[in-house]
Amino acid sequence: MLKKELLIGVDLGGTNVRAGAFTPGGELITANETPIDAALGPAAGLKTIEKLINQVILASGQEAAAIGIGSTGPIDRVRGLINNPYTLPGWDHVDILSPLRARYGVQVAFENDADAAALGEVWMGAGRGVSRVFMLTIGTGVGAAYIVDGAIYRGLYGEHPEGGHIPVDPLGPACYCGGNGCLESLISGPAIAERAVRLASEHSRGYLGGKLNDPQGIDAATVFAGARQGDADCLSLVHEVAATLARGLASIFMLLLPDRVLLTGGVTRSFDLFEPTFRSSLAKYNVIIPASRVDVRLAGLGQRAGIYGAARAAQQLLE
Amino acid sequence: MLKKELLIGVDLGGTNVRAGAFTPGGELITANETPIDAALGPAAGLKTIEKLINQVILASGQEAAAIGIGSTGPIDRVRGLINNPYTLPGWDHVDILSPLRARYGVQVAFENDADAAALGEVWMGAGRGVSRVFMLTIGTGVGAAYIVDGAIYRGLYGEHPEGGHIPVDPLGPACYCGGNGCLESLISGPAIAERAVRLASEHSRGYLGGKLNDPQGIDAATVFAGARQGDADCLSLVHEVAATLARGLASIFMLLLPDRVLLTGGVTRSFDLFEPTFRSSLAKYNVIIPASRVDVRLAGLGQRAGIYGAARAAQQLLE
Repeated sequence: MLKKELLIGVDLGGTNVRAGAFTPGGELITANETPIDAALGPAAGLKTIEKLINQVILASGQEAAAIGIGSTGPIDRVRGLINNPYTLPGWDHVDILSPLRARYGVQVAFENDADAAALGEVWMGAGRGVSRVFMLTIGTGVGAAYIVDGAIYRGLYGEHPEGGHIPVDPLGPACYCGGNGCLESLISGPAIAERAVRLASEHSRGYLGGKLNDPQGIDAATVFAGARQGDADCLSLVHEVAATLARGLASIFMLLLPDRVLLTGGVTRSFDLFEPTFRSSLAKYNVIIPASRVDVRLAGLGQRAGIYGAARAAQQLLE
Repeated sequence: MLKKELLIGVDLGGTNVRAGAFTPGGELITANETPIDAALGPAAGLKTIEKLINQVILASGQEAAAIGIGSTGPIDRVRGLINNPYTLPGWDHVDILSPLRARYGVQVAFENDADAAALGEVWMGAGRGVSRVFMLTIGTGVGAAYIVDGAIYRGLYGEHPEGGHIPVDPLGPACYCGGNGCLESLISGPAIAERAVRLASEHSRGYLGGKLNDPQGIDAATVFAGARQGDADCLSLVHEVAATLARGLASIFMLLLPDRVLLTGGVTRSFDLFEPTFRSSLAKYNVIIPASRVDVRLAGLGQRAGIYGAARAAQQLLE
């Protein structure tokens, strides 16, 4: 008889689903991914997810012991519902857990995607063996998660805090979070792009000015490319983003003093560009707290962090 | 034979020492306090502390089981040292724990005063029975502590985070914490007083203008008194403080989602004045997190919170 110890991790995003099959020791046996057309609705989406799970189970030649789902938020973790008219349009109050439990006869863990990714990094990535790991994902949005002694930090009623929305500048732009000048409104990819378009329109010169014939085509990557060519506007934007990120991390340091902070997401692919300003801005807080001893580094698992963490969440159900 | 279960809590401040004797159930049997002249040095200070401990032990008619000290920071909790040339001048690298252990033959707990006060509130005050309690003390400084499941939250190397120094306004005043525009630099008593003096000088009218003959005499209480009389400058300052406090709490909510936040310290004695602006400013964050369900209220034990918490820290050594 097959040992039933396979852990399945699923990362459900707005455009793709990934799944992986893992050993209890955290070794990835096989992984797969497929696009998901959220607009076709949850029933079609569930079929896509099941097909993917079947594929990785089959490829691993073992039986699943538990399944974990890391899902793009907002989710209602306690009731096991996806409440997501934003990135999964039409998926409001959708229960995907019960069908998966019934289909595979195993327990199913359910986590926010930022929590799952951080849990994955602590299990098998850049946060292994570290007590207090804070992870910040800077991409289309700014997501955050905090893992304490290997467990996801949960707030009031077990709900997920939204560490990407700490307000850092009272004069900053309004955000859907209700506040203004929060971290996401200032350093997410779209926020950087918006400021680049404004700078381009104001100056109509330099690297950004040359892109003005197609302002829709200006994104954060444009700014980073311009900065690498030494464009003054792009460099000043990069410095601003770096200083704002440092102020955000200063709040996190002052409140939590984590042992390690992991940075990930599209914007951090150009981390080398803003690292010098970022590190020198952070160093000034090293007076009343040991700020310079907090180990800030890039995450290690890339886009696979989510399936690792979902599998680990599944494993924690069995512990 | 006397049952040896008395818990002694000591609150060591820059100008006063308090001590209390408690039952294991958290009942205060007797308390006492005395001024301390920190400038006379640690040896004299230690004598004052011992005298106070002797008094409360004698008055309670029982034997001490453990002693806890909550001390004005910075302290080196792990090595048991007071490192405090600021509020305890001359007390640098002072070990008061070893002499107390030797003198009373019991274990001695040692905590930062903000941590001790919060632990006291969770033990017997306004945080009883609540899982995640964040406490903010707004007085001469802004201190913070976080108690999770009855235990003091500790950061990197077990050190005390400095939640009163989260940066909230990039254009705010410089602070000794290394940053600028941190919560303490904007809403502490002295920060409020400084802004009042500036407003008075600029306007030289109204309630504050009338105090300009003695600017040294203007403090936060002056501002609150002026606001109660309807003075426009004082009211605007109160609204500003309320909005800044709300932004600070928004960061705490976004990162931690605590179940309850306790406010204490001199500035909060006028909480009724800034409560309306404060609550309406906080309510706007109730979009992606359940901000309105975080129970924000005044702490309950007043200046005795420190001795309660120090006694509870002592008790935790025996558990």
